Amino acid sequence: MEATKKELKKSGSLSTDLVLQQWLGHRKLTRRVFEAFPEDKLFTYSIGGMRTVEKLAAELLTLGAPGIRGVVSGRWGDYAETQAGFAFTTKEELLKFWDQSTEEIAALWPQITAERFHEVDKFFGMYEGKIYWSILYLIDNEIHHRAQIYVYLRSLGIEPPPFWERG
Amino acid sequence: MEATKKELKKSGSLSTDLVLQQWLGHRKLTRRVFEAFPEDKLFTYSIGGMRTVEKLAAELLTLGAPGIRGVVSGRWGDYAETQAGFAFTTKEELLKFWDQSTEEIAALWPQITAERFHEVDKFFGMYEGKIYWSILYLIDNEIHHRAQIYVYLRSLGIEPPPFWERG
Repeated sequence: MEATKKELKKSGSLSTDLVLQQWLGHRKLTRRVFEAFPEDKLFTYSIGGMRTVEKLAAELLTLGAPGIRGVVSGRWGDYAETQAGFAFTTKEELLKFWDQSTEEIAALWPQITAERFHEVDKFFGMYEGKIYWSILYLIDNEIHHRAQIYVYLRSLGIEPPPFWERG
Repeated sequence: MEATKKELKKSGSLSTDLVLQQWLGHRKLTRRVFEAFPEDKLFTYSIGGMRTVEKLAAELLTLGAPGIRGVVSGRWGDYAETQAGFAFTTKEELLKFWDQSTEEIAALWPQITAERFHEVDKFFGMYEGKIYWSILYLIDNEIHHRAQIYVYLRSLGIEPPPFWERG
């Protein structure tokens, strides 16, 4: 995770490995936010007509590991079918899917070549853009929806895990 | 903003310029979220004891341009004093501060050298870490608090601007 001397010589850049490390840090925090959420409310609680934590987690799971699988292979499955594969009915199942996805992302990541990182492709067959943009989108989207869950937690009187802790 | 051929040769990395472009895209969206918020509620509305939009915006303004000024110069001012300089009483004043900050960030950015990006420093004299980590923290923190404001908006029956639009 340390910037190597080789990396320092590249003028002002973030290696893809550092991008992965950032994401993995965020995924640890997101896991803690799921853990903090009352199990029964995962499937029911919402503010202002927004999605439940179940639906938000389903989106993050569907875009995450399957998204990186697509980045590596150039082929993505059908979104709805992929999402159906992540159906869960308990917090434990959600956390298990989350951990498996994190492992898969970390395992696949080194196969993303430099060229691929800057290539244009249709992410999930739907969103056309540079691959790095889609990957940053995945991370930002996780931060965005997790913050929404922070508000759900606060409104339930539960203190969420600190935002700056990623270890 | 296009990845240059030189950048493509660097194996799998994001140039600091791409990091800036990402942030500027987020700042445009954050501006639209402030614009969408009812002016009187900026100073009063909250869920679950969380901070008002005024307080969140004050944090983002204080960390943003002054943070990058510190990254460039190695010197940061006092946090509370810096924040006091961003006091606003109308939405128009907030948006003016936001636009000035965005301009300043974009103007200062090219002065961040490759070495500086990977240096360890105490951001704002408080948070020790690699400079790139602190910069990513600024961006992530903006996404995080902005998402909180998305929930405030939804709970007020107002549709927020689309998350994926950054132009």
